[in-house]
Amino acid sequence: MDGYVAGPDQSPENPLGVGGERLHEWMVVTREFQSQHGQSGGEHTADSEIAARMGSGVGAHVMGRKMFGGGDGPWDTTWRGWWGDEPPFHAPVFVLSHHERAPLEMAGGTTFHFVTGGVEAALARAKEAAGDANVQVAGGASTVNQYLAAGLLDELFLHVAPVVLGGGERLFVGVGDPTLTPVEVVGSPTVTHVRYRIGR
Amino acid sequence: MDGYVAGPDQSPENPLGVGGERLHEWMVVTREFQSQHGQSGGEHTADSEIAARMGSGVGAHVMGRKMFGGGDGPWDTTWRGWWGDEPPFHAPVFVLSHHERAPLEMAGGTTFHFVTGGVEAALARAKEAAGDANVQVAGGASTVNQYLAAGLLDELFLHVAPVVLGGGERLFVGVGDPTLTPVEVVGSPTVTHVRYRIGR
Repeated sequence: MDGYVAGPDQSPENPLGVGGERLHEWMVVTREFQSQHGQSGGEHTADSEIAARMGSGVGAHVMGRKMFGGGDGPWDTTWRGWWGDEPPFHAPVFVLSHHERAPLEMAGGTTFHFVTGGVEAALARAKEAAGDANVQVAGGASTVNQYLAAGLLDELFLHVAPVVLGGGERLFVGVGDPTLTPVEVVGSPTVTHVRYRIGR
Repeated sequence: MDGYVAGPDQSPENPLGVGGERLHEWMVVTREFQSQHGQSGGEHTADSEIAARMGSGVGAHVMGRKMFGGGDGPWDTTWRGWWGDEPPFHAPVFVLSHHERAPLEMAGGTTFHFVTGGVEAALARAKEAAGDANVQVAGGASTVNQYLAAGLLDELFLHVAPVVLGGGERLFVGVGDPTLTPVEVVGSPTVTHVRYRIGR
């Protein structure tokens, strides 16, 4: 509600910050999310269809160093991401970083590539890897804001959870004045999904 | 999009701040809004039904001193609000103020009352005036935030315009952790309307 996509006091033990996990609850409880993460539980909810679409049609992902984790200095190469041996991406993931690191091949089709050339370079590599499929910028806030500011996104899919975090990392900071047009709205009792097309 | 309900650099000449009027454009273009403001123009749009509902069933309004205008010091009693001789409220309006002022009766059923006792006192007077009808807290941001923080609102009707203002006055600042449940979502090509029920 208040624009924060992660709560205050982020730490290795609490990467989404205080209260940040509440933003994702609508998704985590779905059977579709559980299945994408190799689990068999979960419920069929009003948000299931949206959860099922999250990674579909995506040929490559881009994420920030903080979302991948492992500190912000030179790499501790024992760090292999937050997602265990088989991350839920099943596609190449291009991680923005200030430090070189060899690609990291995981089970299930996910390979993390570390890109030091900035957002345009990471996007170019992701586009090449994705071919005709889409590239998804996964997050976090700072990464999405950089892509918005650079005018490099075609769409933004926003999921407004009815949660006030009161601090943390905000979306839409330093992004200029993008032209956004809502093209799809799906409401549920737990979250409001709005897909925007972004003009140039 | 970025939580600002008024833009930066608010002034008597530009009370909504730079870009702030873009937030209300969806409403101002409707025939329903124009008619409420004594004009005959406007269009029938996907947002018309929402615009028509804005003031309906409302027996009294509450607003902040800044929304009413006229500076923030002792009253210049020549100031009669931004809305001309016949304001669009057609009901008593209770204006939060630090300075006493006699009630101001306008044409068309609007009387401005100036309340120095704070948000609870203003609400009590508005409730009494409204009888069985609703009390609407009109704004601005600081007033809505104070009512949210005090747990005095039953509903919040949010209209998310696809506009990034980059500065100004933000909603949901200092409001604690209210329990919000989306109960109605209406999407249009220009704005997303979400009505929330607020728990205690």
